[in-house]
Amino acid sequence: MVRQTQQSLCKRLAELDGGSFRQDPWERAGGGGGLTCVMQDSTVFEKAGVNTAVVWGQMPRSAARHMGGGQRLRSGEGELAFYAAGVSVVIHPRNPFAPTAHCNYRYFEIGGADDDVEAWWFGGGADLTPSYLFEEDARHFHSVHKKICDRHDETYYWRFKKWCDEYFYLPHRKETRGVGGIFFDDLHQKPVEELLAFAGDCAAGFSEAYLPLVERRHQTAFAEGHRRWQQLRRGRYVEFNLLHDRGTAFGLNSDGRVESILMSLPLAARWEYDAQPPPGSEEARLLAVLRQPRDWVEEG
Amino acid sequence: MVRQTQQSLCKRLAELDGGSFRQDPWERAGGGGGLTCVMQDSTVFEKAGVNTAVVWGQMPRSAARHMGGGQRLRSGEGELAFYAAGVSVVIHPRNPFAPTAHCNYRYFEIGGADDDVEAWWFGGGADLTPSYLFEEDARHFHSVHKKICDRHDETYYWRFKKWCDEYFYLPHRKETRGVGGIFFDDLHQKPVEELLAFAGDCAAGFSEAYLPLVERRHQTAFAEGHRRWQQLRRGRYVEFNLLHDRGTAFGLNSDGRVESILMSLPLAARWEYDAQPPPGSEEARLLAVLRQPRDWVEEG
Repeated sequence: MVRQTQQSLCKRLAELDGGSFRQDPWERAGGGGGLTCVMQDSTVFEKAGVNTAVVWGQMPRSAARHMGGGQRLRSGEGELAFYAAGVSVVIHPRNPFAPTAHCNYRYFEIGGADDDVEAWWFGGGADLTPSYLFEEDARHFHSVHKKICDRHDETYYWRFKKWCDEYFYLPHRKETRGVGGIFFDDLHQKPVEELLAFAGDCAAGFSEAYLPLVERRHQTAFAEGHRRWQQLRRGRYVEFNLLHDRGTAFGLNSDGRVESILMSLPLAARWEYDAQPPPGSEEARLLAVLRQPRDWVEEG
Repeated sequence: MVRQTQQSLCKRLAELDGGSFRQDPWERAGGGGGLTCVMQDSTVFEKAGVNTAVVWGQMPRSAARHMGGGQRLRSGEGELAFYAAGVSVVIHPRNPFAPTAHCNYRYFEIGGADDDVEAWWFGGGADLTPSYLFEEDARHFHSVHKKICDRHDETYYWRFKKWCDEYFYLPHRKETRGVGGIFFDDLHQKPVEELLAFAGDCAAGFSEAYLPLVERRHQTAFAEGHRRWQQLRRGRYVEFNLLHDRGTAFGLNSDGRVESILMSLPLAARWEYDAQPPPGSEEARLLAVLRQPRDWVEEG
């Protein structure tokens, strides 16, 4: 599933851009490996990364307990076998009117083969981070995800939409990172095949949710001031990823492949002292939504 | 002491640049306040911030215990009075050959007035972060600090130089942030007047240690590639400050004034996937030193 998502998404991104992905396969000393695909400083995309990893090995029970579904592990000490597979995508377009987007879907299993498995779960989600707010873009991104969620469980979308707004939050800025999407973790309450089908549908649906927005915006004319605001917003993206993102922290603390982990950071970002957009501006309109998350689709 | 350092340093920086500092006084709801001075996007300096803060109030004993000298606090629960005064400086010049520098000197006291004081200590240091290595610049910065340290205690420089290399270290990059300087915390083993004189001397000496390097380099001709490397190195600076710097974490977690705390971040920074300087280049020569910290002054 993760390889298939990677392959088809890279193909569509490359077609839209006209450029091509650099492909870096890597191996993990403790078991497994991955494939990092990056397109950088290209026509449509300033930085686009599509990562897959399928890894296994041993980890301390204490460390495993701090992970998504780890609270269900038996007590005790020692090492535990784990298996993890995931796909992770971060796309920063060049045009300030084309939004950044991220998605990540992962499966985690702890406790050795077959009958010894102590816990397994799915986690992931997809979220949209515009520098300029187009309400129809946010509505499209959310309604594609709602349609996918609803096919699997009618409670999913609203629970995961709320979870996304809560997770992608910068307390010191009192802002969400973007206009949200879906986020879930420790999903294990249905048979594994059903949840794999759900995660697979979400991953496959990312193109439909996101690519039309890039197609619609990437040739919009923009001025220096729009670019500056985009760079400031990318500074916020860096703040979230380095200060709060659990995947980034886990990767860096577990001696993961640094270049693949930090591929999520934008090509360029900016921090100005006390930059406040003028009241009533387009920039202020975005901030208002980040400070007070909205619903983008109708109930039901 | 902190106001005096701020005033004289801002004056010298403004003279060197030809620009002027924006001055933002602020008050803290719980007690005290500060003055944030910033020069941004100016001639010599891309971003220069000189902050002072003198604050007091109450904090949970458990939080106080996690601070520099907090391990000496009595056991128990409840709130504790605290008093803190500090000056904090981060300077990012525009020219890629002129190094970034940082210094911070602070005094902390916990446990109420006079006889009730349970712990007090000084902390701080100064460090230099070049994008291009000029050995004579590193030697100058270190020897000024050694001279100051030696006047107060002949063990200080070598202990604090080592502490600096250890503190400003990015484990995931296996690099130090820069070529070091001095760093100390929980300094309380001499009478408070002597240690105040030491911290004051260090703060006053920062200009002598750093400004000649900016004067020497800020007009050096540079190409696009030098600027790009500087921006990549500033990305590393952001990584350190958001992932590891204790002052930044403390400020953000304690609901400090965000714009004053994050003033340390550069105006612009860059992250390229897997950027590796060619062997033998000037850029590679810097990295070698960051991966294997060196002594910059003679023993004795």
